[in-house]
Amino acid sequence: MITYSFASIGSDSLYEHLYKCIKNDILQGNLAAGEKLPSKRNFAKNLGISTITVENAYAQLMAEGYIYSIPKKGYFISDIRTLAPKKHPSDTGRETIQKPSEPECFADFTSNQTSSEYFPFSIWSRLIREMLNERQQNLMTNPPCGGIYELREAIARHLQDFHGLHISPDQIIIGAGTEYLYGILIQLLGFDKRYAVEDPGYHKISKIYKSHNVSCDYIPMDEGGIRIAELEEKSIDIIHISPSHQFPTGITMPIGRRYELLGWASKADSRYIIEDDYDSEFRLTGQPIPTLQSIDIMEKVIYINTFTKTLASTVRISYMVLPKHLVKAYYAKLQFYSCTVSNFEQYTLAAFINKGHFEKHINRLRNYYHYKRDALVHCIRNSPLASHVSISGEDAGLHFLMRVDTELSDSQFCQKALEQGVRISALSQYFMTPPPSAAHVFIINYSSLEEELMEKAVAVLYQIASENVHGLW
Amino acid sequence: MITYSFASIGSDSLYEHLYKCIKNDILQGNLAAGEKLPSKRNFAKNLGISTITVENAYAQLMAEGYIYSIPKKGYFISDIRTLAPKKHPSDTGRETIQKPSEPECFADFTSNQTSSEYFPFSIWSRLIREMLNERQQNLMTNPPCGGIYELREAIARHLQDFHGLHISPDQIIIGAGTEYLYGILIQLLGFDKRYAVEDPGYHKISKIYKSHNVSCDYIPMDEGGIRIAELEEKSIDIIHISPSHQFPTGITMPIGRRYELLGWASKADSRYIIEDDYDSEFRLTGQPIPTLQSIDIMEKVIYINTFTKTLASTVRISYMVLPKHLVKAYYAKLQFYSCTVSNFEQYTLAAFINKGHFEKHINRLRNYYHYKRDALVHCIRNSPLASHVSISGEDAGLHFLMRVDTELSDSQFCQKALEQGVRISALSQYFMTPPPSAAHVFIINYSSLEEELMEKAVAVLYQIASENVHGLW
Repeated sequence: MITYSFASIGSDSLYEHLYKCIKNDILQGNLAAGEKLPSKRNFAKNLGISTITVENAYAQLMAEGYIYSIPKKGYFISDIRTLAPKKHPSDTGRETIQKPSEPECFADFTSNQTSSEYFPFSIWSRLIREMLNERQQNLMTNPPCGGIYELREAIARHLQDFHGLHISPDQIIIGAGTEYLYGILIQLLGFDKRYAVEDPGYHKISKIYKSHNVSCDYIPMDEGGIRIAELEEKSIDIIHISPSHQFPTGITMPIGRRYELLGWASKADSRYIIEDDYDSEFRLTGQPIPTLQSIDIMEKVIYINTFTKTLASTVRISYMVLPKHLVKAYYAKLQFYSCTVSNFEQYTLAAFINKGHFEKHINRLRNYYHYKRDALVHCIRNSPLASHVSISGEDAGLHFLMRVDTELSDSQFCQKALEQGVRISALSQYFMTPPPSAAHVFIINYSSLEEELMEKAVAVLYQIASENVHGLW
Repeated sequence: MITYSFASIGSDSLYEHLYKCIKNDILQGNLAAGEKLPSKRNFAKNLGISTITVENAYAQLMAEGYIYSIPKKGYFISDIRTLAPKKHPSDTGRETIQKPSEPECFADFTSNQTSSEYFPFSIWSRLIREMLNERQQNLMTNPPCGGIYELREAIARHLQDFHGLHISPDQIIIGAGTEYLYGILIQLLGFDKRYAVEDPGYHKISKIYKSHNVSCDYIPMDEGGIRIAELEEKSIDIIHISPSHQFPTGITMPIGRRYELLGWASKADSRYIIEDDYDSEFRLTGQPIPTLQSIDIMEKVIYINTFTKTLASTVRISYMVLPKHLVKAYYAKLQFYSCTVSNFEQYTLAAFINKGHFEKHINRLRNYYHYKRDALVHCIRNSPLASHVSISGEDAGLHFLMRVDTELSDSQFCQKALEQGVRISALSQYFMTPPPSAAHVFIINYSSLEEELMEKAVAVLYQIASENVHGLW
């Protein structure tokens, strides 16, 4: 049986490490197409790890097309050569890099992609045209590294009107996506600092920190958000959180914990809080709790937000709001960088906000998502699936949690759904070490789901949940 | 007299460190507006450094408006409060971050800014409109992290037709500017590697490496480019060069040195060459020497190029061509990143290249710059300045060197020019430790100079060169 060492695991989680080892062997040809992988139970025993870890690694490999499963037979290596991209006319017979393609899905509860029907194409088009006609000189003038002032002013006004933040446009730094801004923050705050993220959370965020070769810890959460005692224990300098609507738990950090967190930050110069407010525009009900930024008088909070959620995931414009002393540090240290967003899009977005289109667009989107969420919840409640599930966290943001009463493991459930064209992810996948209570909870991100496919998707989930499976795998 | 420690200098050059210390004192208010700075000679003696170092630091501070000079009196601290940005209507009386503004210039020989009259606005506008009408679904679909395939194919064809490079579109990674791509390369190649850049060279490149907390050495050059023996001595892993038209020297690395460099790289797995071909489209005369990438059979060369020079400095689209094994490593390690360029601009640029507009645009620009260079050289040769200067490196790229027969130090010369509205930089500024031979050589970047102002700019330079100055400063 194949075996792998967990000695050089670094900061990966166990399942990520196993996933990478197997993927590597497939890419290198050490595991040949059609070869059978060990059963999850045996493999786990052999490696001295838990079955759920092997399950998660297999699920990831399967989602990416590296392996496939045959019910009651097991897992097999895909022929990755057949998954190479289509030959294009320009490709003059040279070898192309082979990447496995993802299976086709009719419903994707994991996607953040905006549907094209909701992008304001005609307004955007008109604004670009005006820009190209009237502001040629502006368009060709290099902006400050923080971004075009007009856009920063527009964002400052939006933050004031929408979130009640009182900030100066000078505090805003524009960048091509939040991922890019995290990298800038590491350069600003220091590679020697100890960074930390929420557990569970988006794996991508910790990957970005690790990819920059900085220390990145995971801080467990309770029902009020991250546990502050752990920050002290682990000597964390910088904590990256989403207090308004945590992903994937949906937790909103209560005001008490917010003050405690600010208290923690105020105890050392090196401490900062990165407040990642990624989907704050979509709180669907209730009064929002004030951002950490707005109650921070010690200049300890860096607020980050993005237009990739509100406008389109393919328009790469995000921003951060730095405390004033960090603005100075930013210009002293990093002023040599050029702004990563093109002038054309910065000016267009500024006009879009200034002429009131952004506000209307958000309201329209919020209504649309509200409607979509209601339709999906209604669809679930009116299907036989209702007796197998309970729903929580449906009041905020663009996803909710669904606990399913099933004997299937999380990866079995996700895999069976995938085979029937429904991509779904389990809460346990977002933990470093999933607690038993996280099992059988799935994340329903409904932003990209088409309404006419809801019933079909719910039927698939019902069929899987209602199957009586007795550990056949 | 004020004094500074050079103990904590880190990897800054002496003049950068001094510049930062003084700037910091000005921003903190330790040096008050109107206060006189020590004379360069006394200050240098006191700090135990050379006068040229103090000169360079003062020149930088002056260029940024932190200090000013009164002829025969000396240097004084500016009132930085008067340099704060204009109050904007949105700015509700809150304190703004104060940054000194740059002096106004009618001629800027240091700028890379494209003039707006040469951007193909009407074609670009039409292509965007078509895109927004016809390809809404594409525009809203998340691209692979390497960029939109259509654009990568277009770039591959352009590289084939224009530079004779035979590469697959899969090897191309699109990013929002070369600066962003350098950061990605560090994450790909490793933070533990020893990086190096050319000396003299663009300071920005070494700043980016240092800002990422990696080791970055300076490799001196001879007339054939970087000295390979120094790469061995300093145990360099990754060397970042511009062999086709080095900035600022204008050196084109001869073919023999290119092979030697590839030989150096092939001797260890960790060694790579980053070939930064930043202005290759603008070689004005002669047959280009093949790129390192095109003669590399060991997969040791990473080729980087950008559209910020050919299209507009405010359109942030650059790309790199990775050797095939690094493509695999890139997707294995960094696939979680979203592409930093928006779909709108990627599709527009792809159409711009595919419909033949890019080729026409480059030809048009090349003719324009050719004409501009000829006009400027003609203007110099027909002015009394001709008897004070000699010109070199005018055959390639967008700048040439001008040696001036003057008793003024480089920083005096630049400062006097600046006072009369001409921004110019000296070759010596681009060295870590300028050799005596670099003195009195200035860099003439003519890309943004307006033709009708050439005579005026040349007259200013003549006036300064012809003044009989006997070390009055």
